[in-house]
Amino acid sequence: MPVLVMKFGGTSVANLDRIRRAAKRVGVEVAKGYDVIVIVSAMSGKTNELVGWVNETSPLYDAREYDAVVSSGENVTAGLMALTLQEMDVPARSWQGWQVPVKTTAAHSAARIEEIPSENINAKFAQGMKVAVVAGFQGLSPEGRITTLGRGGSDTTAVAFAAAFDAERCDIYTDVDGVYTTDPRIASKARKLDKIAFEEMLELASLGAKVLQTRSVELAMRYNVKLRVLSSFEEQSDDAGTLVCAEEEIMESNVVSGIAYSRDEAKMTLISVADRPGIAAAIFGPLSEAGVNVDMIIQNIAEEGRTDMTFSCPTDQVARAEKALQDAQDRGEINYHDLVADTDVAKVSAVGIGMRSQSGVAALMFKTLSNEGVNIKVIATSEIKISVLIDRKYMELAVQALHDAFELHKAA
Amino acid sequence: MPVLVMKFGGTSVANLDRIRRAAKRVGVEVAKGYDVIVIVSAMSGKTNELVGWVNETSPLYDAREYDAVVSSGENVTAGLMALTLQEMDVPARSWQGWQVPVKTTAAHSAARIEEIPSENINAKFAQGMKVAVVAGFQGLSPEGRITTLGRGGSDTTAVAFAAAFDAERCDIYTDVDGVYTTDPRIASKARKLDKIAFEEMLELASLGAKVLQTRSVELAMRYNVKLRVLSSFEEQSDDAGTLVCAEEEIMESNVVSGIAYSRDEAKMTLISVADRPGIAAAIFGPLSEAGVNVDMIIQNIAEEGRTDMTFSCPTDQVARAEKALQDAQDRGEINYHDLVADTDVAKVSAVGIGMRSQSGVAALMFKTLSNEGVNIKVIATSEIKISVLIDRKYMELAVQALHDAFELHKAA
Repeated sequence: MPVLVMKFGGTSVANLDRIRRAAKRVGVEVAKGYDVIVIVSAMSGKTNELVGWVNETSPLYDAREYDAVVSSGENVTAGLMALTLQEMDVPARSWQGWQVPVKTTAAHSAARIEEIPSENINAKFAQGMKVAVVAGFQGLSPEGRITTLGRGGSDTTAVAFAAAFDAERCDIYTDVDGVYTTDPRIASKARKLDKIAFEEMLELASLGAKVLQTRSVELAMRYNVKLRVLSSFEEQSDDAGTLVCAEEEIMESNVVSGIAYSRDEAKMTLISVADRPGIAAAIFGPLSEAGVNVDMIIQNIAEEGRTDMTFSCPTDQVARAEKALQDAQDRGEINYHDLVADTDVAKVSAVGIGMRSQSGVAALMFKTLSNEGVNIKVIATSEIKISVLIDRKYMELAVQALHDAFELHKAA
Repeated sequence: MPVLVMKFGGTSVANLDRIRRAAKRVGVEVAKGYDVIVIVSAMSGKTNELVGWVNETSPLYDAREYDAVVSSGENVTAGLMALTLQEMDVPARSWQGWQVPVKTTAAHSAARIEEIPSENINAKFAQGMKVAVVAGFQGLSPEGRITTLGRGGSDTTAVAFAAAFDAERCDIYTDVDGVYTTDPRIASKARKLDKIAFEEMLELASLGAKVLQTRSVELAMRYNVKLRVLSSFEEQSDDAGTLVCAEEEIMESNVVSGIAYSRDEAKMTLISVADRPGIAAAIFGPLSEAGVNVDMIIQNIAEEGRTDMTFSCPTDQVARAEKALQDAQDRGEINYHDLVADTDVAKVSAVGIGMRSQSGVAALMFKTLSNEGVNIKVIATSEIKISVLIDRKYMELAVQALHDAFELHKAA
C-alpha cells in the first residue's frame, strides 16, 4: 500500500469536534487505498499551559523534566484520534514517541531525530491496521528519556516519518489554507501561493512565518518529500493549499516571493568587549552551549582594543543568554562593560529565489522603509533574503509598505 | 539509606503552590536521611477531564487508548514535582511507568502490577539522587503498551514501591487527616481513628470510603507495609494521621469501627432467567470478562424452572453489564425475559473486626434502619461487615443513625 503522512496542528485538533473532522479527512485517504500515518500536535493551548507551569516552577529548568511534562499534550491527542478513527470503523492505534521508537539525540527540548525504525508500525499495517496515529514533537534519547524537538516540532516529526516510510506525500493540515506572500492579518492584499520553493519556505519559516517549522522544510528538501500545506477547516480538492517543492518545479515567480516578520526577536549588545583573536568564538560558543539561537551578528570596528558586539536571538532566550555571558565573564573567558538587551524590536525580511538573478532588491527595500520613516537597526542578507531589525512599533507598517513595493498582490 | 515512600493525591498536587508545599514535606524527610520515592497523582480534575474526553469520543472505548490518554496527567505532575524539588536543591528526577519499568498485566484500565525492578532507581540513588518522583497509576504491559491500574491506582503504586524497595513506611498524603468512623461531611460526630486494622480498612475502602484504594490495602497487608494516611494540608507530627496496621497492634477497639457508604452502586435484576445447573457461571462469567465488578448477588427461589437473579455493580459499569448480558443472551448461553437496572440505590455498611467475637450487630443495624423507616433491598455479610442496599435518598439518614447506634463518636 502507498503510505500518506497527514499532520494536524494544534488548532486542527483543538477539541473533540475538530478531532472528528480531522479523522474524517483521514478516512477519505484510507478509502483511497492509503496506509496513513497521522502525526498530531497537542490540542491548542495545552502546550502553552504546560510550558507555563514549567517556567513558573523553575525558570532555568532541567530540560529533561521540561520534555517529560510538555510531551504529554501530544499523547492525549494521539489516543483520542485513534479512538475517533476506531469509532468510524477505521483500524487505528496510537504510538507515543518512545514506542515507535523515534530515536533522537539527547539534546533535550531541541532534540534532532536520528532514526525512525519502520518495523513496528509496518508490522501493524501488514496485520490490517490502516492508520498509525503518532504523537508528534517527541522522541526517545539514547538514555531512554523523553525528548522533544522544540516548538513546532510536529512538522519535523511528520516529514521524518514521510522520509522513513517513503510516503507519497506529507500533508500538513493547519489553520491557514496555504503559504501567503505575507501574513494576511497584517497586509490585507496578501496572496496565497500555489507553489513555493523549499529554499524560500526555509527562509520564510526561519524568519517567523509560522506555517512550517524550519527543520521540517530542511528535512523535506534533503529527502525530497512532497510537502503540502493546507487548511483543515475547508473542503479540499486534490490541489488545494500550497505545495512546497523543488525550485525547478516552479515555472514563473516574482523576484520576491514573500515578506516575513518576527516579533519575538531581541537585540543584545555587549558594550566594550575586550577585543582579541577568537573573541567571537569565546562569546558565541557559550551561547550555543546554552541553547541560545543567535541569528544576526554585527561587530563594530574595534577602537583601542575594545569593540561592541550586537546579536539577535529569540526574546524568550534573553535570560539564558545573559546567564551564559555572565558565566563566561566570571570564568574570565570574555570581558565586557555592559550587556544591553533591547526586546522592543522586530525583524522584517524580503525573501525570493528570484533575487539571485536580479539586482536592486535591497535598494528598493531600504528606500521603501526610508520613505516610511522607519529606522533600520541591523541588516543581514543571504542569497535569497534581506532582513532588517526595526523598532517593533513600525513592524506592520514596514510589512505593508514592502508588500506593496514588491507588488506581491500580483501573481508572476 | 532507608527508603521512604510518600504518595500525594490529586488535591495535594492540584496546582503549583500545592506541589511546592508537598515538595517541602519531601525535603523534610530527605533532611532526616531518607532516600525518598514520591508517587504522584494527576492534578485534581485532570483525570476526570481526560476520562470525559475518552467517553465522549468512544463510549465503548479501546482500553489501550484509554490508558494512553488518561496516564498523561500523572506524567505532568511527576515532571513538575521533580522540577520543584530541583529548585529546592534536592536532587530529583521523574520516572514514568514505562521507564522504571512498572511491569503490569495486559488488563488495560485495570492492570495489576507484576514486578517493579529496583535497579534503575537504586542506581540513581547510589549516584546521589535523593528523590525519585514516579508517576502513579500507570505501568507497562508485556506488549510494551501503557496500562493503568484503575481509578485510585496511585495508592497501589505507592504500596507496591514500598514493598519493592523495602521502605520503612508508606505515607499517603491526601485531603483528609486520617481515617474516620464515617464521612464527617455526612455525620458531624465522626471521629478520626489513630489506628485501624488492615482488614477493616480493606472493607472500608472496598465499600466506598475513598481514603485508600482496596488493592493498595491488600498489597500492604500481604507485604506488611506500614501504611499511614495523613493530610497534606496540616503541619505534621511523627504520629499524625491514621496508621493502617496489623490487627494485633491495636489494643482496644469498638465492635464496629466505621460506617461506610457508596453512592455509585446500581442494583441489576435479571427477570425470569431460565434456571439450570451452571446458570450463575453463565451469567457472571461474561460479566467478569467484560470487566464488571459485581459485588452483592442474590438469587430468588426458582419456580417452574425460572428464577430472578439480582446483583450490584458500580453505576458506571451498567452499560457494560447490559451489553455483556445481551451478548450472552444472543449467543444462547443464557435466557431471560428482562434486565432491570435500578441506579437509584446506595450501599451502607458497618465494619469492625470486633464483630467476630460479638453477636447482635446485625440485629442492632436492622432495628436502627427499621426505626428510621428505611427499607432494606439487599443484605450481604462477611465476618467483619454487614452491608445493605437502600434507596439512595435515605443514605445520609442511615449513616447518621448507625453512627449513633454503634456509639462511634466515643473512643474504645
